[in-house]
Amino acid sequence: MSKQWWQEACQALDESARQAARLRDAQLTKPAGALGRIDALVPQLAALQHREHPRLDELWIAIFAGDHGVAEEGISAYPQSVTGQMLGNFVNGGAAISVLASQLGAELEVIDLGTAVPLPPMPQVRHLALGPGTRNFTQASAMSADTCARAMQAGRDSVVRAGQLRTELFIGGEMGIGNTTTAAALACALMSCAPQALAGPGTGLDAAGVAHKCLVIERALTFHAGSHDTVEWMQRLGGFELAALTGAYIACAQQGIVALVDGFICSVAALCAVRLNPGTRDWLLFAHRSAEPGHAAVLAEMNAQPLLDLGLRLGEGSGAALAVPLLRLACVLHDKMATFEEAAVAAKQS
Amino acid sequence: MSKQWWQEACQALDESARQAARLRDAQLTKPAGALGRIDALVPQLAALQHREHPRLDELWIAIFAGDHGVAEEGISAYPQSVTGQMLGNFVNGGAAISVLASQLGAELEVIDLGTAVPLPPMPQVRHLALGPGTRNFTQASAMSADTCARAMQAGRDSVVRAGQLRTELFIGGEMGIGNTTTAAALACALMSCAPQALAGPGTGLDAAGVAHKCLVIERALTFHAGSHDTVEWMQRLGGFELAALTGAYIACAQQGIVALVDGFICSVAALCAVRLNPGTRDWLLFAHRSAEPGHAAVLAEMNAQPLLDLGLRLGEGSGAALAVPLLRLACVLHDKMATFEEAAVAAKQS
Repeated sequence: MSKQWWQEACQALDESARQAARLRDAQLTKPAGALGRIDALVPQLAALQHREHPRLDELWIAIFAGDHGVAEEGISAYPQSVTGQMLGNFVNGGAAISVLASQLGAELEVIDLGTAVPLPPMPQVRHLALGPGTRNFTQASAMSADTCARAMQAGRDSVVRAGQLRTELFIGGEMGIGNTTTAAALACALMSCAPQALAGPGTGLDAAGVAHKCLVIERALTFHAGSHDTVEWMQRLGGFELAALTGAYIACAQQGIVALVDGFICSVAALCAVRLNPGTRDWLLFAHRSAEPGHAAVLAEMNAQPLLDLGLRLGEGSGAALAVPLLRLACVLHDKMATFEEAAVAAKQS
Repeated sequence: MSKQWWQEACQALDESARQAARLRDAQLTKPAGALGRIDALVPQLAALQHREHPRLDELWIAIFAGDHGVAEEGISAYPQSVTGQMLGNFVNGGAAISVLASQLGAELEVIDLGTAVPLPPMPQVRHLALGPGTRNFTQASAMSADTCARAMQAGRDSVVRAGQLRTELFIGGEMGIGNTTTAAALACALMSCAPQALAGPGTGLDAAGVAHKCLVIERALTFHAGSHDTVEWMQRLGGFELAALTGAYIACAQQGIVALVDGFICSVAALCAVRLNPGTRDWLLFAHRSAEPGHAAVLAEMNAQPLLDLGLRLGEGSGAALAVPLLRLACVLHDKMATFEEAAVAAKQS
């Protein structure tokens, strides 16, 4: 079988830019490392962007939406019609991510991969029509191999468009009623975990709802028992938006665009991306630890230490967007602070 | 003895504004509470600002600088001359807080309460000349009752100036070589803790340096043994900038200005403020948990849950400044998101 695009090499990091950024940081008028995680970010960004002074001004946010056949098992607090309704809210400016994108000066792209309730074409939404949501993965594969490849390609295509606008930071967001169930099932499969370790309340299930969600995932894992590679797990469990995000993260790494990963669902897609192409990992920054209890385990699997821990559980890329000002301020501090020599300030006593 | 200004009542909170903000939040197109800590902030800000739609556009940052006689005990990695040198760096735009203030559109005020090395007058710095730093608190009271009152008044005066500009958020910062030692000693006295629980590396001591710092604090606590009220502990241990910050936080609460507390030193000043006038507590938001190990205990003493946990240990108000975009985005989301009705999105299934 010929090599798939997602197996192709990621961009190399620029270690001389990393070193130059470190040297500059050591000369700035603050104790070494006094800005903690903020200080640590800049050399990594320098290595990724091939410049001593990284910048994150040009921001691209792509929201991938899709429905999940498993919703018919009653695993969400919201009806499936919300997926399509929220697409309208995204482009009309009323959703959290719409407000955040506007405040941050980001390009916002909204991609409808396939909803259960057919939608009339909406201006500003890319309708890709991969299907009326995925199939119920407790009884079938969520999608075909071809559909999974098309979903991954949808993520890559968004990154290509981002690259054409010289995007310096890519944020992927998601919308899909039922997608914490899909993400938890996929993470269970990839990490060989029990559902109880990774499934949580999502948009607002109570304890009985979470217990039912775990049973649904257990049934699915039994149905799909066996040894499958990462792409096959994605086909079997879904969803469209998870596959698109997986493709997007890999494409970011291949094209040299830093990606900021949002919450639980995005992190499971990031895990798929890193399993498919380990070089992707260097290109991923992690924005926050969400309220979804399984998120911490998925982050730990990638040795990821997110910036924020605010109990967020909205999705849409909103948690990543909230972390953008911190990243931007890190770059501006590195760029504009005076050195000890410029400011005539004495350095640490040796 | 007549009532001191810092004992006078704080502004009342507006519970109807809090309730209005909560009601609006419940109608916005997201699951209830899905923005976690971000969602929880807005009703509190609404109650403090007497409006359903709080704003934090007008920002005031005041840096209080002073030297510490205890520096002669060798408890800092930096020479005392740095305190004065950094004052120049603050007003010349080269320090971290200068860069952050500029990025955030904040007013930045720099107040020299008294440095060990005499400074030539600098334009844009308020030189208050309370003394050549405090006295070494292992052998004497750090300052007189009159000087302590003047330092507290300096903080209040800054808040009065902030209020004249209709400031919506006050950030106090500090600069003073040796001030983590002073703050740890003061926190030990107020919380009846051992130095080992609250003293840390500050700007960069090694383990032996921290052990020495603990011994210095132990000697001071023995020298000042006895039952003293909060103001007397402030006089005995200092420092100028801690007293100024204490006065500033109380004045914020009395004038109805929200205050965002920075790191370890600011939090110890906040603890003094809350002990002197418990009504102050409602007006304090806490920006971050710093790398200084004692900070967590001081925060817990005030039941404070900071927004960020990034290993910051710079001071200057820098950690508070880094948290400002999160607070501002919380307000903008609350203001601009669509309601379920406006967006024609179905709410949660009952």
